Amino acid sequence: MLKENRVTFIACDKTYEEAEFVLWGAPFDSTTSFRPGTRFASGTIRSESFGIETYSPYLDKDLNEDAKVFDAGDLELIFGESVRVLEQVKEMTAIIVSDGKIPVMIGGEHSLTSAPVHVLSEKFPDLEVIHFDAHTDLREDYLGNRWSHASVIKRCHDILGDGKIHSFGIRSGEKEEFYWAKEHIHLQRFNFDGLEETVECLKGKPVYFTLDLDVLDPSILPGTGTPEAGGVTFDELRFAISKLSELNIVGIDVMELSPHYDHSGSSTAVACKIIREILLTFSK
Amino acid sequence: MLKENRVTFIACDKTYEEAEFVLWGAPFDSTTSFRPGTRFASGTIRSESFGIETYSPYLDKDLNEDAKVFDAGDLELIFGESVRVLEQVKEMTAIIVSDGKIPVMIGGEHSLTSAPVHVLSEKFPDLEVIHFDAHTDLREDYLGNRWSHASVIKRCHDILGDGKIHSFGIRSGEKEEFYWAKEHIHLQRFNFDGLEETVECLKGKPVYFTLDLDVLDPSILPGTGTPEAGGVTFDELRFAISKLSELNIVGIDVMELSPHYDHSGSSTAVACKIIREILLTFSK
Amino acid sequence: MLKENRVTFIACDKTYEEAEFVLWGAPFDSTTSFRPGTRFASGTIRSESFGIETYSPYLDKDLNEDAKVFDAGDLELIFGESVRVLEQVKEMTAIIVSDGKIPVMIGGEHSLTSAPVHVLSEKFPDLEVIHFDAHTDLREDYLGNRWSHASVIKRCHDILGDGKIHSFGIRSGEKEEFYWAKEHIHLQRFNFDGLEETVECLKGKPVYFTLDLDVLDPSILPGTGTPEAGGVTFDELRFAISKLSELNIVGIDVMELSPHYDHSGSSTAVACKIIREILLTFSK
Amino acid sequence: MLKENRVTFIACDKTYEEAEFVLWGAPFDSTTSFRPGTRFASGTIRSESFGIETYSPYLDKDLNEDAKVFDAGDLELIFGESVRVLEQVKEMTAIIVSDGKIPVMIGGEHSLTSAPVHVLSEKFPDLEVIHFDAHTDLREDYLGNRWSHASVIKRCHDILGDGKIHSFGIRSGEKEEFYWAKEHIHLQRFNFDGLEETVECLKGKPVYFTLDLDVLDPSILPGTGTPEAGGVTFDELRFAISKLSELNIVGIDVMELSPHYDHSGSSTAVACKIIREILLTFSK
Amino acid sequence: MLKENRVTFIACDKTYEEAEFVLWGAPFDSTTSFRPGTRFASGTIRSESFGIETYSPYLDKDLNEDAKVFDAGDLELIFGESVRVLEQVKEMTAIIVSDGKIPVMIGGEHSLTSAPVHVLSEKFPDLEVIHFDAHTDLREDYLGNRWSHASVIKRCHDILGDGKIHSFGIRSGEKEEFYWAKEHIHLQRFNFDGLEETVECLKGKPVYFTLDLDVLDPSILPGTGTPEAGGVTFDELRFAISKLSELNIVGIDVMELSPHYDHSGSSTAVACKIIREILLTFSK
Amino acid sequence: MLKENRVTFIACDKTYEEAEFVLWGAPFDSTTSFRPGTRFASGTIRSESFGIETYSPYLDKDLNEDAKVFDAGDLELIFGESVRVLEQVKEMTAIIVSDGKIPVMIGGEHSLTSAPVHVLSEKFPDLEVIHFDAHTDLREDYLGNRWSHASVIKRCHDILGDGKIHSFGIRSGEKEEFYWAKEHIHLQRFNFDGLEETVECLKGKPVYFTLDLDVLDPSILPGTGTPEAGGVTFDELRFAISKLSELNIVGIDVMELSPHYDHSGSSTAVACKIIREILLTFSK
Repeated sequence: MLKENRVTFIACDKTYEEAEFVLWGAPFDSTTSFRPGTRFASGTIRSESFGIETYSPYLDKDLNEDAKVFDAGDLELIFGESVRVLEQVKEMTAIIVSDGKIPVMIGGEHSLTSAPVHVLSEKFPDLEVIHFDAHTDLREDYLGNRWSHASVIKRCHDILGDGKIHSFGIRSGEKEEFYWAKEHIHLQRFNFDGLEETVECLKGKPVYFTLDLDVLDPSILPGTGTPEAGGVTFDELRFAISKLSELNIVGIDVMELSPHYDHSGSSTAVACKIIREILLTFSK
Repeated sequence: MLKENRVTFIACDKTYEEAEFVLWGAPFDSTTSFRPGTRFASGTIRSESFGIETYSPYLDKDLNEDAKVFDAGDLELIFGESVRVLEQVKEMTAIIVSDGKIPVMIGGEHSLTSAPVHVLSEKFPDLEVIHFDAHTDLREDYLGNRWSHASVIKRCHDILGDGKIHSFGIRSGEKEEFYWAKEHIHLQRFNFDGLEETVECLKGKPVYFTLDLDVLDPSILPGTGTPEAGGVTFDELRFAISKLSELNIVGIDVMELSPHYDHSGSSTAVACKIIREILLTFSK
Repeated sequence: MLKENRVTFIACDKTYEEAEFVLWGAPFDSTTSFRPGTRFASGTIRSESFGIETYSPYLDKDLNEDAKVFDAGDLELIFGESVRVLEQVKEMTAIIVSDGKIPVMIGGEHSLTSAPVHVLSEKFPDLEVIHFDAHTDLREDYLGNRWSHASVIKRCHDILGDGKIHSFGIRSGEKEEFYWAKEHIHLQRFNFDGLEETVECLKGKPVYFTLDLDVLDPSILPGTGTPEAGGVTFDELRFAISKLSELNIVGIDVMELSPHYDHSGSSTAVACKIIREILLTFSK
Repeated sequence: MLKENRVTFIACDKTYEEAEFVLWGAPFDSTTSFRPGTRFASGTIRSESFGIETYSPYLDKDLNEDAKVFDAGDLELIFGESVRVLEQVKEMTAIIVSDGKIPVMIGGEHSLTSAPVHVLSEKFPDLEVIHFDAHTDLREDYLGNRWSHASVIKRCHDILGDGKIHSFGIRSGEKEEFYWAKEHIHLQRFNFDGLEETVECLKGKPVYFTLDLDVLDPSILPGTGTPEAGGVTFDELRFAISKLSELNIVGIDVMELSPHYDHSGSSTAVACKIIREILLTFSK
Repeated sequence: MLKENRVTFIACDKTYEEAEFVLWGAPFDSTTSFRPGTRFASGTIRSESFGIETYSPYLDKDLNEDAKVFDAGDLELIFGESVRVLEQVKEMTAIIVSDGKIPVMIGGEHSLTSAPVHVLSEKFPDLEVIHFDAHTDLREDYLGNRWSHASVIKRCHDILGDGKIHSFGIRSGEKEEFYWAKEHIHLQRFNFDGLEETVECLKGKPVYFTLDLDVLDPSILPGTGTPEAGGVTFDELRFAISKLSELNIVGIDVMELSPHYDHSGSSTAVACKIIREILLTFSK
Repeated sequence: MLKENRVTFIACDKTYEEAEFVLWGAPFDSTTSFRPGTRFASGTIRSESFGIETYSPYLDKDLNEDAKVFDAGDLELIFGESVRVLEQVKEMTAIIVSDGKIPVMIGGEHSLTSAPVHVLSEKFPDLEVIHFDAHTDLREDYLGNRWSHASVIKRCHDILGDGKIHSFGIRSGEKEEFYWAKEHIHLQRFNFDGLEETVECLKGKPVYFTLDLDVLDPSILPGTGTPEAGGVTFDELRFAISKLSELNIVGIDVMELSPHYDHSGSSTAVACKIIREILLTFSK
C-alpha cells in the first residue's frame, strides 16, 4: 500500500509531538503596495529546499540530526481582508505557543508579523523584537490602512512600547519615520553595527526574531517586492544570525521572498539556506 | 518652455470637457485568490498602446477622428481594503456620470465592477449588464470575503435582481454556481451563442458592459491571473463586441489583464486593440 | 495538534483503499534530446491544480463527488540511468495494478510509457494502446540509446506487436518512421480523424491511454520540450478524450509538460484541466 | 585531426557550388520603432533548427534529399546606419544572384527587403512581389526616416511601380495607407482570400516572396516586435505557401522574428518549420 | 472636473519655471552593437520610481523639499538615424541651457552624450567631463559608424581636446583604446581611485557628469546591454557621486539601463535610487 | 564565392595544426539531480562571446595575439547514457592529448570531468587536480548512480588516489563528504585561502584545472543548476586563476553554466570573460 504525499521543508519531517519548532506558511500579500507575489514564497521554498543540503558547514550541524521541526503546511488566508487574516495567524500561533513549541512563520508579507508578536507578548510581557530589514516599516498608516506591510513595526510598537524593538540594516523609509525612530526604538542604519551589544543586553529575555529578507542586497536576493540597493551580503546576514544563538528566541519569521521575480531561482535558494541556518542556530 | 509630460492611452488626449468617454485605471488586486498582478494593467496598457494603430481596418474608424476620450490616469487605491476601495471607485464613477460622460474603467481585478454598476443603477434603475468572462463569479463569498473577484457577479445580482445579467463565454465555476445561474441570470456557456437575441431584447435600455479579458483563450491572452483553456478567439470577441454597437451603453470596464505573466507582451497588445475597438464601436 | 502537510492534485485526496485511480509523478527527463525540464511537471501540476475548479461544465461531473483518486506523490528516480528508472516505474505500476487500481502516471518524459505498458501487457495479453502525440516516437534508437523518448512507441511495439498501437495527431518524425508506421501501427497524421472507428473496434478490450501533451498546438501549450506547430486545439483534444469514455481503460499517462518554458503558467493550467477531464471521463 | 565548427540551418550543409538556394542572416533592427530584437533571429533560428525534423509530412519531402541549400552565416551589419546596411545587403544579394542561385534572407527587420528587391528588379524588370504581413508598411516615412521598417513596401513600390505588389493578411496600418493601397497595390485584408487567382496571374513571371512572420497570430508567434492580434494560423500560412509552388520564385526572405520575446521558444520553432516548408516547396 | 494624467519621476513635479534641473528621457538605441533595449529605460524608470522613497538616509535630504526638478517626458527620436537624433538632443539641451537650467538626460544609449557635451562646450569653453563607465568608448568608429555608442568618449574628445575627460571604473575595451587613453585623457581602470584628487583639480570649473550604469557590477545591475563583470558596488558608486558634490555641475546624464534584461526589476530600482542620489547631491 | 559559416569562441579561430589549446563543448546534463540545462552552455557561450573584448586589461594580453586556440565545436553526446558519454569524452581528449595540445572542455555537467582526468592520468601518472567549486562532489553515488555530477571528485579520487586533489571554495555537501575529505584530499572551505602554498607545492607537476562556475556567488552567476549562496566574487576568482599561471597545466574544463536560468545574460558574460582570462593566463 502506498503512502500519502507528505511535503515539508527539507528534513522538517518530525512529528508534531516531538517537534521543538513548528514551521508554517502564510501566503498573503494583499496590502503590498508595490509588487505582490510573496504569497508564492512558502510553497516555492518547500519544493526548492531539496536543492540545498541538510548539513551546514558553517555550523557543523545537520537538520536531520540537530533540529526537530514539524512543517504544518500553509494556512488558507482570506485575500483582501487584512484584519481577519491577522486573526487567523494569531490562532495558529496560539496553538503552537500553548503546546510549548516555537512558531516559525514563512511569509508572505511583513504585515503579518504583528500577529505572533501580539500572541507572544501576552505570554511574555517583557518580549523584545530583533528586526532585520531594509525598510523602517514605521508608517502610522499607508493610504489609511493601518495594517499595511509599511506599518508593521509601528503596530509592534503599539503592542510593546518604547525601547523594545531593535532594527538593523534599515536603509529606506520616509524622513518622519527615521526621526520618530530615534526616540522610540533602536534603529541601526545600513548594517549590523552594534548587534553584539544588543545581544548582550537581551540575554535571558524572551526575543522574537523577524527577518525581512530584503535586508539582503538585491544582488543577493532580487526576488522581493521592493528591491532596495545597498543591502548586506549573505555572509554578513549569516554571521549576524549566528550572533543571536545565545538569545532566548521564542518566535521567528522569515518574510517577503517573492519568487515570481526570482527568475534564476537564486533568491529562493538563499532563503532556503537562511532558514536552514536559522533552524540550526536556534535548535537546542 | 517645455510642456508637462501628459500620458494617455493612445489618442485619448481630448479635454475633459469635450470628452464623451472618461477612461481611468483601477490598479487593485488584493482579493485575487490565485495569481495577483492586475494592478499593473492600466499603466502597462497606456505605455504599450503606442504599439497599435489608432485606425481600425475592421470598423474603418480612427481614434483621432472618431472618438472623444479623456484619460484621467490611475486612482490610488488602498491595497488590502476591499470595502474602502469600492467606495473610491464609486466616487470616481459618480463624478463622471454626473457630468454626463461614460465611464471606462481599466482594471484591476473584476471585483471592482460592482462599484460602477451600483452607481449607474441609481441613475438607471432599469440597468442591464452584459458580461463576457471565463468564470461564473457567482460565489456568495470566497473564504468569507463577499467582495472577492469570485463573487462580483453575485454582488451585481444583489443590486440588480433576477434576469438583468447576461453572461457569455463562461467555462469555469463551481457546480452550485452553474445551477444557481439557471434560475437567476442568463448564462451562455463557452461561447457567444444567443448574443444577437440578447442584443435585440436590450435595445433602448441602459446597458453596462463588463469584459473580463480571460474570456479569451489563454493562447490569445496568457497574461491573466487564472488562465482558463477553451476560450474564444480574438476575432470571435471582436465580432461579439461589434454586435453590441446598437445598444445604449452607459458604462464599460475591461478587467483582469495581468502583465507580469505576459512575457511576450502579446496579451497587452490584445488588450490595447480590444480597448480601441470598444471605444470606436461605442463612440457616437 | 496540527496535521501533516498532505499535498495532492486538487480533490485527489481519497485514501489508497477507496481509490479507483492512483496518480503519481515521474520526474525524469534524462534522455530528452532537445530541451529538458519535464522533471518539474508533476510538482508544478499539483500546486497549480488549485487554480482550476473541481467541476467540469463539459461533463457535468465533479472531482469531489464523481472520482476516487489517490495521489501517491513523486517517485525518486535516478537521473542518467534510463534502464533502472524503467524498473522503478514498473515496480510502482505493478503494486497499483496488483491492488486492482488504475495507474495514472504524470510525466516526465515519454520514454517512461514503456514501463506501465510492459506491466499491463503481462496482466492483459490483448492490451491495445491509444497514443496522442505530435511525434512518431518510432526510432529504433536515438544516437544508440534504445530507451530514448524518441523511441518509446517503438519499444511499446516490441512488447505488443503489430496492429495494437493507435497513434493520432502525429505531425513530426523521420521519413523512415512514417513509412515504417504504415505497416506496423495505425497512425493518423495531424488530427483525430478515424478515432470513432478505432474506439468502436477496441470496445471491450483493455486499453492503455498515453497522452503526450505536445499533441496540442504550441499556442495552447508552449511549455513542452519540443514545441511542434500545427497541433490540435484544446477543444479538439477534450472532445477526443470524451470519445474514449466507453473504452475499458486500464492505465493512463500524461507526459511532457515542461513548466520552465511556460512563463505565463497557461500550459500548466491546460495540463491540469486535461487531467481533470481524463479522471472524470474514465471514473465509474 | 579535428574539423572546424561549421554551423548551418539544419541540413543546409551543401557546398556553395552545388547549392540552389543560398541562405544568410541579416541581423539588423535599428529602425524598429517599437521593440527591437530581430537581430537575434538568424542565430537563434540556426541553433534551434535542430529541434525540428528535416522531413515534412505535409509535403513528403526531406531537406537532406530534396533541397540544396548553402548557409552563408550572418552578415556583419552597421547598426544605426540604414542606408549603408541596405548597400551591404545589396552586395550580398548581387553575388548570389550573379552566380545563378536564389537568395534566402533571414531577418532582421523588414526594412531590408527593399535591397534584394532592388537587385532582382535589375535582373528581372518584370519582377512581382508576394507579401505576407500583418502591417501595410506603406508609410512614406516614419518620423522622417524613409528607410524605416514601416516604409519598406512603399520603397518596393518606388522600385516596381503600380500593380506589382500583392499583399495578404494585412490587418494594421494608418488610414491613409489602406486608402493609398487601393490605387497602387493589391492588398488583401486579414487573410489569404484571392491568393489562388493571384498565383494564376503571376505564373511564369519572376516573383520575390517576402514573409513578415507577424502575419501569424501572436498566439502562434508571440516572439515579434509588434504583435498584432487577429492573424492567420500556422496551417493557413503553411497552406498559402504551398499554393505558391508553381511560381517562378527568384528571391525569398523571412523577417521579424524577435527571439527575446519568445520565452517558450515556440515562436522560433514555428519560424524554423516555416523555413523548412519554404525551402522544400520551392526546391526543384 | 478631473485632471490630466501627468507622469514624472517621483517628486520631480515642479513647474518648468521654478525648476533648477530639467530631466527628460532619450529613448534611442539604434547603434547598440550587442543587445538593444535602452530605449525602454526612461519610461520604466518613471513608473518604477514610485517604488523608492523620496528621502535619502545617506544624505538626509528629500526630493520633495530639497530638489527642484521638472520632468519633460521623452523625446520622440528617429530610430536608425544617429546624426539626426544627435541634432534632436542638441536642440533639447540648448533650450534648457539657455533658460539657465541644468539638463539631466536619462538614456538611451551612451552615444547621445556627445550632444549635450557639444552644446555645453559652446557655453562653457573650459568644460570638463567626469565619466563613470565599464567601457572605454574610445573607438574612432565601430564598423565605420563614428556615432556608435562605442565611440562616444572619442567624440567628446574631438570637441574638448586632450586632458579634459576623466574616466573611472573602466574595465573593458580594445588594447588600442587603453593605449591611446594614456596620452589623451585621464583613465582610471576598475575603480574610483584618484577621484578625490580629480575633484580637487576641477573645483570651480564647469563639469559635465556622464554615468554609464554598467560601471556597476552586473550582480548589482544585470539590466544593461553589455554586462561586464568586475564592476563597482552600489555603495562605491553612491560614495563616488557624493564626492562630486562640491563641483560646478552644468549637465548630467544617466545612460544604458536596459529594462528588458532586468527580469527581477532590481536594476531599475538601482537606477532610480542613483538618480535620486544624483539629484539630491547636486541640488542647491 | 561565399564561405562556410565557421562559429568559434571569440578569436579562437586558429587552425588545429597551429593551436596550443583545443576548446570543445560537451552538452550533457542527464545526471543533473536538481535543474538541468548545462547542455545549452557551450553554444550560448560561443554566440555571446562576441559581447566581450579579446583584450584583457587585467593581464594586458589579447586573444588575437597572445593565444592559439582551435574551437572544435560540440560533441554529439548520448543523453541518458552516462557511461557511454564518458567514453565519448575520453576519445575526444585522447585525440587532442596525443597531438600534444591542451584540451579545454566547456561543460555541460561536472560529471564529465572524470573522463579527461582518466586520459591525462595515463599520460601523466603524477597528475594533480586543482578544483574550484561550491560543492564537494564526493558522494560515492547518488541514488545508486556512481557517475552522477555529485560524485565526480570521488571518481577522480578513484583514479588518482589520496592527496592529489586540491579543492577550493567548497561550501555545500553532506556531512560525510566533508569528514571523508579531511583524510583523502585537500579541501578549503568557502574561499581560496592556502592557494598560494598549494601552487608552490605543485610547481613542475602536471596539473588538471577543473572549474565549476558555481564557485562564484549566485549574485555573480545565477545561471547554474544549483545556486549556492556565500560564494566568491568575480575578482577573487580572477585573481585565484592568475595565481595558477606558473603551473604546468595539461588540461582544463569550465563547467555548469546553465543559460536558461540566466535571464539577464550576465552569467554567460561572466563565463566568457573567465574563459578569456583562463586562455590568456595559460597561453605560452
